Amino acid sequence: MIISSSLNISTSTHRGDINDDDNFESSIAAEGYVINSVSAPLKLFTFERRLPNDDDVLIRIYYCGICHTDIHQWKNNWEHSNYPLVPGHEITGVVERVGSNVKRFRIGDRVGVGFIVDSCLSCKNCGNNLEQHCPDASYTCNGIERDKVTPTYGGYSNFITVKEHFVCKIPKNLPLDAAAPLLCAGITTYSPLREYNVGKSTRLGVIGLGGLGHMAVKFGVAMGAHVTVISRSRSKCFDAVKLGAKAFIYSKDEEKLKLADDSFDFIMDTTSVVHNVVAMMNMLAFKGVYCMVGASPKSVEIAPFFLIAKRPIITGSLIGGMKETQEMLDFCSKHEITCEIEKIEATPKQIQMAYDRILKSNIRFRFVLDIINAFK
Amino acid sequence: MIISSSLNISTSTHRGDINDDDNFESSIAAEGYVINSVSAPLKLFTFERRLPNDDDVLIRIYYCGICHTDIHQWKNNWEHSNYPLVPGHEITGVVERVGSNVKRFRIGDRVGVGFIVDSCLSCKNCGNNLEQHCPDASYTCNGIERDKVTPTYGGYSNFITVKEHFVCKIPKNLPLDAAAPLLCAGITTYSPLREYNVGKSTRLGVIGLGGLGHMAVKFGVAMGAHVTVISRSRSKCFDAVKLGAKAFIYSKDEEKLKLADDSFDFIMDTTSVVHNVVAMMNMLAFKGVYCMVGASPKSVEIAPFFLIAKRPIITGSLIGGMKETQEMLDFCSKHEITCEIEKIEATPKQIQMAYDRILKSNIRFRFVLDIINAFK
Repeated sequence: MIISSSLNISTSTHRGDINDDDNFESSIAAEGYVINSVSAPLKLFTFERRLPNDDDVLIRIYYCGICHTDIHQWKNNWEHSNYPLVPGHEITGVVERVGSNVKRFRIGDRVGVGFIVDSCLSCKNCGNNLEQHCPDASYTCNGIERDKVTPTYGGYSNFITVKEHFVCKIPKNLPLDAAAPLLCAGITTYSPLREYNVGKSTRLGVIGLGGLGHMAVKFGVAMGAHVTVISRSRSKCFDAVKLGAKAFIYSKDEEKLKLADDSFDFIMDTTSVVHNVVAMMNMLAFKGVYCMVGASPKSVEIAPFFLIAKRPIITGSLIGGMKETQEMLDFCSKHEITCEIEKIEATPKQIQMAYDRILKSNIRFRFVLDIINAFK
Repeated sequence: MIISSSLNISTSTHRGDINDDDNFESSIAAEGYVINSVSAPLKLFTFERRLPNDDDVLIRIYYCGICHTDIHQWKNNWEHSNYPLVPGHEITGVVERVGSNVKRFRIGDRVGVGFIVDSCLSCKNCGNNLEQHCPDASYTCNGIERDKVTPTYGGYSNFITVKEHFVCKIPKNLPLDAAAPLLCAGITTYSPLREYNVGKSTRLGVIGLGGLGHMAVKFGVAMGAHVTVISRSRSKCFDAVKLGAKAFIYSKDEEKLKLADDSFDFIMDTTSVVHNVVAMMNMLAFKGVYCMVGASPKSVEIAPFFLIAKRPIITGSLIGGMKETQEMLDFCSKHEITCEIEKIEATPKQIQMAYDRILKSNIRFRFVLDIINAFK
């Protein structure tokens, strides 16, 4: 049931209009960019978004970050891409309508949506605020809704309808554009730092200084850790220092790398390209934690002797639950942390340019699509 | 300074006699079995043990367990064997002499010595009761003393002199023969179970049912865990149940293995032969712990996606510190736990037989050498 709306309701299905059939409103015409195959370029796409059910929020999307995952999904690198695919899972916008049971949001609220839009909310993981690990979770794009039929379309579009539970509040002091990537790059790096109590005494190594890596540095610095950036791009040294890192290691210099053996209490590996993980793990201190958040396609080889002698914790992490995502946003508000972004027009040409530059690691640090000005 | 002795002191250097040079006693003639090369059989060997310094304990060895490590060291599987090598690091015996500063032991006390005989006692790891991870630790055999000159000779011998700190008390209700393997197989499996709080709610999987594995089962059962044994020997099923395991998985049956996916909160991998670790790790529940204590020579391949989606803790463990080793022995006393052993004569022929049977996994569960009756 719709209780309020700032949209004009009509029977036509123009952009942003609501499909009204004998006063039974059920969907809104949305626009976005779609990928139809591994080799196809992005194209304009019109589709339907459901109007809010009782516990839903309809959001007018303002900005959407570009994550490396978008490219992996386009290129089917992980072999589970479902076309047609509307990418985008770093979404900020403004509430346009709310369902009758929605309690936390009102029209006009500034909100964000990340990697998931639904889950069962009754399993053990959901009960533990780890909705992202619910076996029945619906991903924001390249997924399927819980009806097991409707594909989910992501944030390269002008509207999205999401169950209230999966919507976060964007604190007032965070601009919507620079906050968008917090919903994935932010929470992905924040969550494991919290899980393993990274703080003042922590020697933190961050591998890769892209969208995820630069957020890990910002969070690590805010938490009081001694942060070192490890990167294969020498040019990132200056950025690392600017972001608050105390040291920089050029990872192609194997001798320098060796000097850093046994140095870090916690290493966050944010790279999703193939790299020398063995050399990276050697930099762990005794009982250190190595956390992978970038999904490199190649398996990591670990010697049992290494595990026995160093007793590390080798682990990974996947975004964060909804409670922790809101906590992260509030942490960002308190510490005035946002992403370093390059805001671009939401056109297929500009998106392609962004993808090309991401693949060349030529980015500081996250592209954000200016959705609100693209689909007026 | 020697304050007391039950040995006859003489100037000759016969078995068990003390080298006495102008009343300056410095060493005792010891006998043992030595490995001189990767292809040589065990041979009788006479050598010197130092007489106790102020903080040393001289132990008459009664029993010594045979660990798979002994074979690895003989065959130089880990490429750091130093010949001549007297194996053995699961030692029990009786105190023969004590140095003037020794406080915890008196002549006649029943004692045990495990994998290490010395460490710096001043580094961070030593301070954290993790002497086994001291960079300057001396291993009981195939090692070097802290003078960096004297090789360490292990427990396939009749005497050993050890700094008090590295000697444990064997509780009265534990027989010395069946207690010997507790000093390695016992503490190796006890320590990680404690570190990760294995207890009543834990679904514990134990891979391999040899010397280490059967101790892991006993400890797991005593701690209240639900224990499952995973073995490539179907015949071990009966033993597993007898030891208190609630379930058994035959690891060569890949379909059965698959059924156990996501089943265990903690898996202890005790095997030191090459095995399908990927299939084993799949049996981990979400956020489960996989701990390697058997040093398989082959690297383990782990997919980053596995780490990210399952968020496991992949780790290893190496024996235990001295404080925890004593705690383990006291736990064994309380729960009346010892090793299941096959006591054999300490002769080169019998040891060779034991090695052959260990390599064929034809053992229930630990061979223990009857040292006291071999070197009278």
